[in-house]
Amino acid sequence: MVTFIIGGARSGKSRFALELAASLPGKKAYLATAQAYDREMAERIAKHRAERSSNWTTFEEPLAIPALVEKTAQDYEVLLLDCLTLWLSNLLLAEKDLAAEVNSLLSAISAVSGSLFIVSNEVGQGIVPDNALARRFRDLSGQVNQAVAAAAQTAYLIAAGIPLKIK
Amino acid sequence: MVTFIIGGARSGKSRFALELAASLPGKKAYLATAQAYDREMAERIAKHRAERSSNWTTFEEPLAIPALVEKTAQDYEVLLLDCLTLWLSNLLLAEKDLAAEVNSLLSAISAVSGSLFIVSNEVGQGIVPDNALARRFRDLSGQVNQAVAAAAQTAYLIAAGIPLKIK
Amino acid sequence: MVTFIIGGARSGKSRFALELAASLPGKKAYLATAQAYDREMAERIAKHRAERSSNWTTFEEPLAIPALVEKTAQDYEVLLLDCLTLWLSNLLLAEKDLAAEVNSLLSAISAVSGSLFIVSNEVGQGIVPDNALARRFRDLSGQVNQAVAAAAQTAYLIAAGIPLKIK
Repeated sequence: MVTFIIGGARSGKSRFALELAASLPGKKAYLATAQAYDREMAERIAKHRAERSSNWTTFEEPLAIPALVEKTAQDYEVLLLDCLTLWLSNLLLAEKDLAAEVNSLLSAISAVSGSLFIVSNEVGQGIVPDNALARRFRDLSGQVNQAVAAAAQTAYLIAAGIPLKIK
Repeated sequence: MVTFIIGGARSGKSRFALELAASLPGKKAYLATAQAYDREMAERIAKHRAERSSNWTTFEEPLAIPALVEKTAQDYEVLLLDCLTLWLSNLLLAEKDLAAEVNSLLSAISAVSGSLFIVSNEVGQGIVPDNALARRFRDLSGQVNQAVAAAAQTAYLIAAGIPLKIK
Repeated sequence: MVTFIIGGARSGKSRFALELAASLPGKKAYLATAQAYDREMAERIAKHRAERSSNWTTFEEPLAIPALVEKTAQDYEVLLLDCLTLWLSNLLLAEKDLAAEVNSLLSAISAVSGSLFIVSNEVGQGIVPDNALARRFRDLSGQVNQAVAAAAQTAYLIAAGIPLKIK
């Protein structure tokens, strides 16, 4: 069972995903794509970590998410990937083969027998960015959101902390 | 009764809030957080004011919104705060204690016995802004939207002028 | 019958509109507002064109959309205008009389006896742009989205490829 959760920045999407996931039985793995490359990010990660209870085992992985999903799916009943958008950003900056990575993720997702929650950002509802890399990232995010949402059985759009079931 | 209305720029959120509020009986106060610091803003404010009928008493207040909510709630049955996002922007520019201000607003909201409509902007669905102040404002807006929406009994998301009840 | 479809960049709105429209009987016209002013755009247009089957006749028109809607409505049962936002951008860059153009479009829309699908972008859910032209475009897009959505019998909001019927 894959659940896709999309919303804007600080829309409460991670908290909603955590609440949904925490209500399920079984061992829980939190797959974090964030890297603490500066103080702002380090504080954000520490805050998120403090919000999770000790029932969660945290794995921090900026790039090799498909392999991590496959591996943790063997040992945990509940997986939470937070977030897809940052993983894409990491891949783009590391100049990885994006199409291959996304295909690997879709394969890994389809093989999960437990519950997988995937958090992602909507980044395409502002003005067209004036630099080409940001436009490319925006396009890529939208395309991957579509592909992952299509693979999910359930999807939520979050606004101001309020979930709206859209699938 | 608190009703939270969120949408993008020019999504019709203020007009929808006005229509909802105007349909209720009782004296009506419009709490405007906009300041006419340039011609563009002055025109926007004048346009909004012209759209309201004479049934509304307008209070313009960029910063002391919690006190204004408390005060007007004594004399008016219907309050419309437009908008939360601009109030936050005003507080940030004035270097106020944001956490304290937001807590004061939440207290003031909880004490309103009439109908309070709060309009806010979704600002977190574009590409991550490249300056730190904009990122801080974006984060703050999202957090406050969550807190106020949680305090509301009813919430709407507006797109292209069309309201979608989400709570 | 007018159907309005709004979503962010790469949200799957064009594909959803195409699927809806393709499911109807009758001759089909695709009204494209995109101009291939650079390689990035040329690739995007070619990709979109390849996604459409040969059942569609494509008309490319950056500016004179009201006249094109009127003309094609005589000969085709199904029209798909993709997209409103780019048409507005083209008008703004060409320094056309925007209010007159939008009124012409609303007139043309109201005279369509077949099925008209109109795709548009939500561009107002990011941080306020720091240049005046982008702000003006953002305001204009929101206003026109409201006007066209009001003229539609049916409207969808698309997120991550998932349609949500909002009207």
